Parts: sequence; C-alpha cells; structure tokens
Amino acid sequence: MWTLKVVGLGAVAVSLSVELLRLFIHFRAKRAINKVLFFPSEVTCVEHFFSPLSTHSCLCPLPHGVETSFSRLLHYILSASSSLNVCVFSFSEVNLSRALLLLHSRGITIRVLTDRDYSAINGTQIGVLRKAGICVRCDRTSVHMHHKFAVVDEQLLITGSLNWTQTAVQRNKENILITEDPELVQPFVKEFQRLWLNNNPTQLN
Amino acid sequence: MWTLKVVGLGAVAVSLSVELLRLFIHFRAKRAINKVLFFPSEVTCVEHFFSPLSTHSCLCPLPHGVETSFSRLLHYILSASSSLNVCVFSFSEVNLSRALLLLHSRGITIRVLTDRDYSAINGTQIGVLRKAGICVRCDRTSVHMHHKFAVVDEQLLITGSLNWTQTAVQRNKENILITEDPELVQPFVKEFQRLWLNNNPTQLN
Repeated sequence: MWTLKVVGLGAVAVSLSVELLRLFIHFRAKRAINKVLFFPSEVTCVEHFFSPLSTHSCLCPLPHGVETSFSRLLHYILSASSSLNVCVFSFSEVNLSRALLLLHSRGITIRVLTDRDYSAINGTQIGVLRKAGICVRCDRTSVHMHHKFAVVDEQLLITGSLNWTQTAVQRNKENILITEDPELVQPFVKEFQRLWLNNNPTQLN
Repeated sequence: MWTLKVVGLGAVAVSLSVELLRLFIHFRAKRAINKVLFFPSEVTCVEHFFSPLSTHSCLCPLPHGVETSFSRLLHYILSASSSLNVCVFSFSEVNLSRALLLLHSRGITIRVLTDRDYSAINGTQIGVLRKAGICVRCDRTSVHMHHKFAVVDEQLLITGSLNWTQTAVQRNKENILITEDPELVQPFVKEFQRLWLNNNPTQLN
C-alpha cells in the first residue's frame, strides 16, 4: 500500500514539476520580441537616445517624449550589446548613422553591407561610417543588393521594405518586422555571412 | 486509503492529459509556416502551377521539377483558398500575375494595392489584372507606397524586400519572409484594410 502511495505521489510531483517547467519556458518564449512597425513615422525629437541628459533639457521644436515607429526602431538597434550586422540598399538617414556611431564607440562590432551604386548617392552616410572606422563592404555585382535588414547580436532580426533613408522613414508607406524567432533570424544571420564573405574586397578580381 | 489512491491516480491522469494536450498544441504550433526565401531565384519552368498536366509534357528549355525560392513563393500565393490581399510598390512579373488570374478564376477574392506612379511603368501587370476584373487600387499620395507584402486567407503573411518584378526575382539580392505567426500577420491584415479604405476612389477628392 505504501509503495502505491509513494509511486502515485511521486508521479504527481514529477508531472507538476514538468508542468511548472513548461509554464516557465512558455512565459520566457512569450516574452520574445515579435513586432511590426509601420511608416511614415511621426517626426519627433530623438536626442535622448544620443544624450540621455537631454531628455528634459532639449529645446528643439520637435515633439518630445513621444514613442513612434522610428524611435522604436532606434531603440532596437541601440539594444545591441555585442554585434550589429546591417545589410541595406540605401543608407542616408542621419540618426540611424548616429546610432551606429554610438554603438561603435561602445565597442560593438558593426558590419555594414550596402549596394555599390547607392553607397555614393547624395547624402549617403556610408562615407561617415567608414571614416569613423566602421567596417563597410559594397556589393560590387551589377545587380541591386536590395535587402533592407539588420541583425542585432545574431538574435534579433529587423527587416522589411524600409531603406535607411529620411524619405522612407518620414514620408513613404513602409513596414518593418522585428523578431527574435530563431526560425526567421538564423537564415538572415547565415545570408549576411555569405554575402559578407562574397564581397571581401581583398578577394575580388 | 481508497480516497488517497483515487485522488493520487486522478491527479496523475489530469497531469498526463494536460501534458498530452500541451504536446498536441506544441506539435500543431510547430507546423505553422515560418520560412525565409532568398533571391535571386534560379530560373526554372513553373508551367506545372498553371497547367498541372504539363509537368511531364512541357518542352520548354528551362529546368523542370526544381524547387526554387520563386516556385515556393508561387506555391504559397496559390495556396489561397478564400482571399489574397496584395500590397506591392511595383508589379510586373508575369507569372505572379498569372497566379492572381488563376486564383481569380477559382473565385478567390483578390485585392491589389499599388503605387500610382509605378502602376503605369513599362511592363506593369496592373492593367492586365484590372482587365480581368481583379479589384485594384492605387495609392494616390505623392509619396511612395513602398510596401511589398501579401496576405493569404488573412492568415499567411508574405513580406520582404522583393518587388513583384522579374528583375527582383531573377537578378537582385532580395528576401521574403513567410509566416503564419498571428502576432506578425494581424498588423499587416489591419494595415492593408486601412490603406485599402484610405484609397477608395469613390471617396477621393
């Protein structure tokens, strides 16, 4: 009789433990980022991202303290703690460039891959990034390197229709999808690595 | 003593049932589509999508029976059983147009929203779709309607950098993300509806 009771209670204990573990995993999984941002984004002050003390002192005429699609995008980019891989067709938005410079100053490893033709257009930030010592490579094929994605810490994917330009952010109808789902993130991690190696300037003819 | 045994065994039965239910839900969830496709895609014959009998009889010089990023994209678009909402900046790829015409002939409700300027470029399929009776609206604002997404049956999202053009499919470096995750799909369902209503030609000044 004692054996039966012990086995029964043991089984209950094991089942409940497994259940609790599952709930814990489920809770952790639910917290994974999975968001969509739509543009154009309202134009607001984003100085607090670059000078935290300016939150209450900035005197610029833009609205302050407003969360927008663009401020969320900046937030996710600036959340990088080890690496940021950027693969964008066109890169001329100044605050996104400032975000990369800030991450670079924090010692985050940044790699930027862009389209050769669009790396030289008016207002491009590619030269600014290069001068700051950020590693940039250009896709040198005759076709468009038309991607618009970034991977933060090899775990967070930022992808969509949005080029990193002021027109895209402030005027166009655009979307960005932000996810930590490994099924979606990992193919982009691999594709970035493939394109990065394919565009190694020391190995090009 | 009997009460203890019954309670013990009852608890085990409940725990195991919950466990089985969880495994079932997990199994179902795992089967949800969550894929990434990269382009350019190899150019292969896709006639079997439009004339199923042609699988073994097509004599065109392209490779046959090869699964590519483009054939997977066509597969997901043609999986629509009730509706397809397309929101693309530029639409000139003939086989994607044929896919919409085929779905239209099957009675699937199709709505296409595109950029006004790009709806009139050389090779656009917008006129072909309109002539076939597919409902098309153009974003009439002066900014770019730069999205490149589609929603199948309000449940499957197809989105990325890829415009629906032959250059994008066969030449450029592009990506498409395909997901059934409601957290990602539903915002696009709502955004499509918002843009569709905003571009109702009977209510424009």
